[in-house]
Amino acid sequence: MLRRGDRVQNMNGFDISGIIHWAGLFGIAVFAVSGSLEAARKEMDILGFLLIGAVTGLGGGTLRDLLLGLTPVNWVGQPHIVTICLVASVATYFAAPFLSSRYRALIWMDAIGLATFSITGTALALQQGAPPLIAVSMGVMSATFGGIIRDVLCAESLVLSSRELYVTAAVAGASTYLLLDGLALGETAATVGAFAVGFGLRSAAILFGLKLPHYQPPRA
Amino acid sequence: MLRRGDRVQNMNGFDISGIIHWAGLFGIAVFAVSGSLEAARKEMDILGFLLIGAVTGLGGGTLRDLLLGLTPVNWVGQPHIVTICLVASVATYFAAPFLSSRYRALIWMDAIGLATFSITGTALALQQGAPPLIAVSMGVMSATFGGIIRDVLCAESLVLSSRELYVTAAVAGASTYLLLDGLALGETAATVGAFAVGFGLRSAAILFGLKLPHYQPPRA
Amino acid sequence: MLRRGDRVQNMNGFDISGIIHWAGLFGIAVFAVSGSLEAARKEMDILGFLLIGAVTGLGGGTLRDLLLGLTPVNWVGQPHIVTICLVASVATYFAAPFLSSRYRALIWMDAIGLATFSITGTALALQQGAPPLIAVSMGVMSATFGGIIRDVLCAESLVLSSRELYVTAAVAGASTYLLLDGLALGETAATVGAFAVGFGLRSAAILFGLKLPHYQPPRA
Repeated sequence: MLRRGDRVQNMNGFDISGIIHWAGLFGIAVFAVSGSLEAARKEMDILGFLLIGAVTGLGGGTLRDLLLGLTPVNWVGQPHIVTICLVASVATYFAAPFLSSRYRALIWMDAIGLATFSITGTALALQQGAPPLIAVSMGVMSATFGGIIRDVLCAESLVLSSRELYVTAAVAGASTYLLLDGLALGETAATVGAFAVGFGLRSAAILFGLKLPHYQPPRA
Repeated sequence: MLRRGDRVQNMNGFDISGIIHWAGLFGIAVFAVSGSLEAARKEMDILGFLLIGAVTGLGGGTLRDLLLGLTPVNWVGQPHIVTICLVASVATYFAAPFLSSRYRALIWMDAIGLATFSITGTALALQQGAPPLIAVSMGVMSATFGGIIRDVLCAESLVLSSRELYVTAAVAGASTYLLLDGLALGETAATVGAFAVGFGLRSAAILFGLKLPHYQPPRA
Repeated sequence: MLRRGDRVQNMNGFDISGIIHWAGLFGIAVFAVSGSLEAARKEMDILGFLLIGAVTGLGGGTLRDLLLGLTPVNWVGQPHIVTICLVASVATYFAAPFLSSRYRALIWMDAIGLATFSITGTALALQQGAPPLIAVSMGVMSATFGGIIRDVLCAESLVLSSRELYVTAAVAGASTYLLLDGLALGETAATVGAFAVGFGLRSAAILFGLKLPHYQPPRA
């Protein structure tokens, strides 16, 4: 029989280096804000903000931990992670009316979270010994999953199907991190460099409508 | 090499006290009914009823177990849990035509399941040693997830976005359980009290259109 | 502290017999193609194809592994599984314009994947010692989940709600496998027989519009 507490205490027996840890918390906060902004667009009540904010903030990391078998998932033993989401959601609830465009704010928060999670997901998978292709896949999935689940819960048209570089930016961020990590430049340099590439690409896509050629159905 | 049976047998090595165990089975059954009622509204065939019923009934507990790392998830080693869902779905298939409103029945079944799962999710998380905030979060997520996945699978507008107190009722049920459990009143009293609060609040919301002030976009 | 690689290496400590292994890879490939075909219908870019293809191909097996507690999930330690998805998606990107109907191709690929996963999911659950009802449930869930997540991500109307025998075909495939496995005919015979039943039933449903009586709401 398991006794109360047996499982949860030893859940973070591996250590995460400094910048990845902080980037992870930062990514969670911005994704929680993006979730709350979508709750604002749907005119939910404060508890809707809290739920959508928490699910969006925690979703990507939760998927990553489940797939890697790192359970209980990260936030179960670390209530401050959930607290970050709740604080971010409440702050958004009160700040949202002062934004000139909740939609633009959402898109930018999502972009920051996307770039951040593509890095932290890749880094954590590498730390668990995953091969390069898997590490990048994990980065991309954990980067995109928060936004996907937010959009599904809010019955919003999916960021995924926007034509701008979305998955591409996550792949770019994850791959750059892998490359820079492989060059042994140190984790801080790898993180900053990968963020610049991932977020830079997504920003350019938002600002200039950058897109890859999309699939064209043959003419009838 | 794992031998057949190695993993599944020891999955429930911790014990769940009486009332939480029975409440859990009850919650599964009513959620399965709610899923089947939505299958009725979508005019699915009997196997659609079984699938949606099972996924709705099992969804919340499955999410909870995955997040807490209690795998294989509860129903894998306990076929009677799946059987409950299947029986509930078949019964609903035959009983549904006699209901004056399938939609009202669905909403009330969902309300009972919501209150029940908010308690069992919180109780199980506490039993695993999760801190209070996490236990309540787990209660809320496992209470709302069944309904969410039911609505997503049936492409129904989400209960989540209804303006009535939905997440609020789950939070109230989970928090009341936490409080009463902390007062050491015994598990039965805590369960009954928390159910009264959670279900009472949701009932009032359904009957009287009770709602929290929802987010108001600023005037243009 | 876990060291890099500790967890991932021992993830597949149980062995999967020959035909189930190959059937699994085959099912992943055809589901990846079906996902990519839906990406084509949504006119996504190449990275959208890769993501939807990978998620559709990997989804069913991932759910199965999570529920059974077989983590890290199968593809984490086996990059060739992800590679199969990526190759299938790229191939579909270039081949799709030459198809006379992307929709028909999608439906047939989905049917093949459905039948295949209903078998591999059941077989793997049996191998883990799950009781018969659970093994069949696992087969049905892993068979249907890839298509469900594909449709949710693409905001497509769900295969689930099509009136043709969909869940039924998965149940038939899984049950036949269970039966033939119980008769100890050998895994190859069980796999081939179950595929014939599951795929045969779904094919008949597609070709002849075969369906079960669906739920009829009572007349007003």
